[in-house]
Amino acid sequence: MSEYVSVPLALAAEQFAKLPGVGIKTAQRLAYYMLNLPENEVKEFADNLVKARQSVRLCRCCQNFTEQELCEICSDENRRKDQICVVESPKDVSAFERAGGYDGLYHVLHGLLSPMDGVTAEDIKIKELLARLSDVKEVIMATNPTVEGEATAMYIGRLIKPMGIKVTRLAYGLPAGSALEFADDVTLAKALENRSEL
Amino acid sequence: MSEYVSVPLALAAEQFAKLPGVGIKTAQRLAYYMLNLPENEVKEFADNLVKARQSVRLCRCCQNFTEQELCEICSDENRRKDQICVVESPKDVSAFERAGGYDGLYHVLHGLLSPMDGVTAEDIKIKELLARLSDVKEVIMATNPTVEGEATAMYIGRLIKPMGIKVTRLAYGLPAGSALEFADDVTLAKALENRSEL
Repeated sequence: MSEYVSVPLALAAEQFAKLPGVGIKTAQRLAYYMLNLPENEVKEFADNLVKARQSVRLCRCCQNFTEQELCEICSDENRRKDQICVVESPKDVSAFERAGGYDGLYHVLHGLLSPMDGVTAEDIKIKELLARLSDVKEVIMATNPTVEGEATAMYIGRLIKPMGIKVTRLAYGLPAGSALEFADDVTLAKALENRSEL
Repeated sequence: MSEYVSVPLALAAEQFAKLPGVGIKTAQRLAYYMLNLPENEVKEFADNLVKARQSVRLCRCCQNFTEQELCEICSDENRRKDQICVVESPKDVSAFERAGGYDGLYHVLHGLLSPMDGVTAEDIKIKELLARLSDVKEVIMATNPTVEGEATAMYIGRLIKPMGIKVTRLAYGLPAGSALEFADDVTLAKALENRSEL
């Protein structure tokens, strides 16, 4: 016997199943929850998502999500304008801001080069980065320490270095609070290689 | 420094964080995904949720979710009408239908008695169950084997038995494919007590 699911429930579950990391079980659970909510709350939920999507735009300068033409960070007078930290996604900007200690600007690529997935230099915000380098002294490549992240950092580094701009890369090493015995070989080798004097 | 999140992103994340089992990290991840979708897809997502909620109603007979006045199961001529399987939620109906082997009707309580949470007999669909027992021979209490599930089964059983209707309860025992050593004491004791002849 096949699974019995009512039409409204199937429709709601189908929507949630579109979300990344949401499997069919979770989607059904969320759908049940949604169908048990008062109708006005479901409307509010739906309207706010559409409103968020409609109001979002990319900052003219750093390409991060914002409501304005220029995002809060780019328009902040107190931040140094000669340093740009290049990241894959808006999530990474949040991570750096949460960590604190960086007062330069950002540039959000909205993706990483990935020839296997058909993502080329035209698909991510590299052009926009090159266009804003006139007064910049240092570009910090802060893409993830993965194959795609490394390749993208290398690619962009090769474009920028000839302009006489310093290009740096985030340090590899042991994560704080971790244990040596659980570190993978590459991390351990890099941590040894990049050891610093005490 | 506090976390930097743009307004549209915060708005979208806030919506997802309302969902059960979705923490702030997951909500942000889903919000990023949503803001990267084309606007028409976000609209479709939102519209379908509202549509699902608007079209859903409770079956006049069994109280399960449906689009019609009478759900597919209640209006199915091939199912026996003298057996009612009482469950907590529409999820449980799906589970039984998926497992197969049951061809009677259901009754969805939409909750379990829980005095601690202020859920009394008036808050769940007990009245509606009592109103449909005229030609019923057996009521199978299929609430979860938890404190609330047991209490609800006992309570309803006590109401129905005086009407001369057979009231049964799902069997306790070892789940198929499990191992004795991992079974809890109550389950093991029940499995021993309810042993059957080979």
